[in-house]
Amino acid sequence: MTMTAQEADRIKQAIPSDGVLPVFHQRWSARAFADREVTQEELRRVFEAARWAPSSGNEQPWRYVVGTRGTETHKKILESLMPGNHVWAKKAPVLMIGVAKTRFSKDDRPNHYAVFDLGASTAYLVLQAAALGLTTHQMAGFDREKARTLLAIPDGYDFGAAIALGYQGEPETLANEELIQRETAPRERRPLREIVFAEWGKGLF
Amino acid sequence: MTMTAQEADRIKQAIPSDGVLPVFHQRWSARAFADREVTQEELRRVFEAARWAPSSGNEQPWRYVVGTRGTETHKKILESLMPGNHVWAKKAPVLMIGVAKTRFSKDDRPNHYAVFDLGASTAYLVLQAAALGLTTHQMAGFDREKARTLLAIPDGYDFGAAIALGYQGEPETLANEELIQRETAPRERRPLREIVFAEWGKGLF
Repeated sequence: MTMTAQEADRIKQAIPSDGVLPVFHQRWSARAFADREVTQEELRRVFEAARWAPSSGNEQPWRYVVGTRGTETHKKILESLMPGNHVWAKKAPVLMIGVAKTRFSKDDRPNHYAVFDLGASTAYLVLQAAALGLTTHQMAGFDREKARTLLAIPDGYDFGAAIALGYQGEPETLANEELIQRETAPRERRPLREIVFAEWGKGLF
Repeated sequence: MTMTAQEADRIKQAIPSDGVLPVFHQRWSARAFADREVTQEELRRVFEAARWAPSSGNEQPWRYVVGTRGTETHKKILESLMPGNHVWAKKAPVLMIGVAKTRFSKDDRPNHYAVFDLGASTAYLVLQAAALGLTTHQMAGFDREKARTLLAIPDGYDFGAAIALGYQGEPETLANEELIQRETAPRERRPLREIVFAEWGKGLF
């Protein structure tokens, strides 16, 4: 396996011109991280973007617990990950977990859009990271109760994704051939007719 | 009230340069819609972006039911909205509702990230709309059961937001002074120290 990160990039980005912002295609979920730190200013920009997502009642229910390499928080998040993620995410210089406050701050009513809005904020976050040349990989595979305990996340906050962030590394630095294959496989999405309906089940396009 | 849409725009976008993609600030949730249709090609681009969001297991659980002005679907979505939204959203040339499939297609296991991933896809959608000069406004205020019945949305799909989409109109075309005030108020967000933690409750920045 001698594909370089640049070659992998070309494969991942070989998408026909389709009239959307390039950043939507620049973002993809790599697993190979380079041995390069992320600066505090880069991190600030990533969260500055996450801050501006829309939310129900402008509640902004999102919170991020962020561990940079060498910190206790980084170790705790790593310890919460399932083995299949741990094997590659341990090389990510930044690990974080997003959570959403499940009640409105102003009147304590349940916020049914808390996790939906966290999803939007996290999308802003990963897009801004891509715009800075960083790669992110969101993970569902972590032990939520372990993460809640280790990171002291209060009741009243629901989990979103764990996120690895850093500079992209060479695919062949991954631990095994299966991961290398996944790293260089083409990206696939459902066609529009399966997701956009003029009426239920009937494609708009 | 003589503020034009352009002046309102200047207020909404008067945000210091902070190193993030301009599209994050271009997007805001207007309520005043111009009497101008959205083309099929513009709509296609908006959903082409929505298609490329990341999702757990690449399930892509998002589905959008889309009504353009004059269609039965537009009427049905409008009929589902709460009065406070109905009053301004009736002028939007496109109304849609996003839903998320709550089980994985491959094995029918519950997908705990369905609504989170729908939130990400909807973020892509509204950002691409902003990049095209369109405005969007997401609404929690609609009758979900009415929408499910009228739009024939099956069990096994959870609701995200209803979304109005179109070209921005003049604030003074809104129905009352309160809406005009809200249209021209500055946008506000929590500071980073409240949402990004090195450990719980302790700001990273």
